[in-house]
Amino acid sequence: MKLRILAIGKPKLRYAADGISEFQKRLKRSCPVEITYLKDKDDSRSLLDKSAGSYRIALDERGARLTTGQLVTRVNALEQRGDVKTVTFLIGGADGHSAELRDQSDLVLSLSPLTMQHELALVVLLEQLYRVFSIKRGEPYHRP
Amino acid sequence: MKLRILAIGKPKLRYAADGISEFQKRLKRSCPVEITYLKDKDDSRSLLDKSAGSYRIALDERGARLTTGQLVTRVNALEQRGDVKTVTFLIGGADGHSAELRDQSDLVLSLSPLTMQHELALVVLLEQLYRVFSIKRGEPYHRP
Repeated sequence: MKLRILAIGKPKLRYAADGISEFQKRLKRSCPVEITYLKDKDDSRSLLDKSAGSYRIALDERGARLTTGQLVTRVNALEQRGDVKTVTFLIGGADGHSAELRDQSDLVLSLSPLTMQHELALVVLLEQLYRVFSIKRGEPYHRP
Repeated sequence: MKLRILAIGKPKLRYAADGISEFQKRLKRSCPVEITYLKDKDDSRSLLDKSAGSYRIALDERGARLTTGQLVTRVNALEQRGDVKTVTFLIGGADGHSAELRDQSDLVLSLSPLTMQHELALVVLLEQLYRVFSIKRGEPYHRP
């Protein structure tokens, strides 16, 4: 099962770009995550087009709030289904996602009830994926 | 009203140290936040000692989950009380907080149901405080 992230707009702050590459590097061993940045002018329509055929997880404050343990269970279940080849996480731009995108996603996931800068959400998501795959492999979470 | 953060252990990853100083710098104009790092061997007892007399907000996954708007309301209410001179946010080490610390806190706040690296939690908290004070001042959230 492949993991992809589609995000509107490149991270503009150095800390975010750094955090993203830190966790992307760590994930290489357990589950490589491909990140594609769409242009700032792109919108939910582009995210839907580019994620067609994959299992879509839209990040949205209004989504389901899962604990890390519940996220592990979801990932395991998806892997066991066998018909899911690619999971795509969708991160919107400043205006968030359209109702259509939320409807057409397989899961709408909230990282926090707090509104977060979307490049920070990307760091939080990647750290979480690293945590999930460390738990799945029975490895201790690697501290620097 | 002064804001302080007490955290166990210095951030070890560059992205986190960067993110913290990015938002601390931005907060200087609206509400300077003082951060003190305790030693890795310190625990909940040290956090309680060093926050004595202040309004304590413990960050803990089991805490209240607020939206950004609800956080703004809480901060306004604290400012209006007049008897709160200092608010201290308490961030635990790898083992989290003791039950005693949670009991002796005025608010136990969860940034997310997900378990987060505690240095990432610090970035999320600071970005959120920056957001809260931008909203309170009626300013647009300053994008880079």
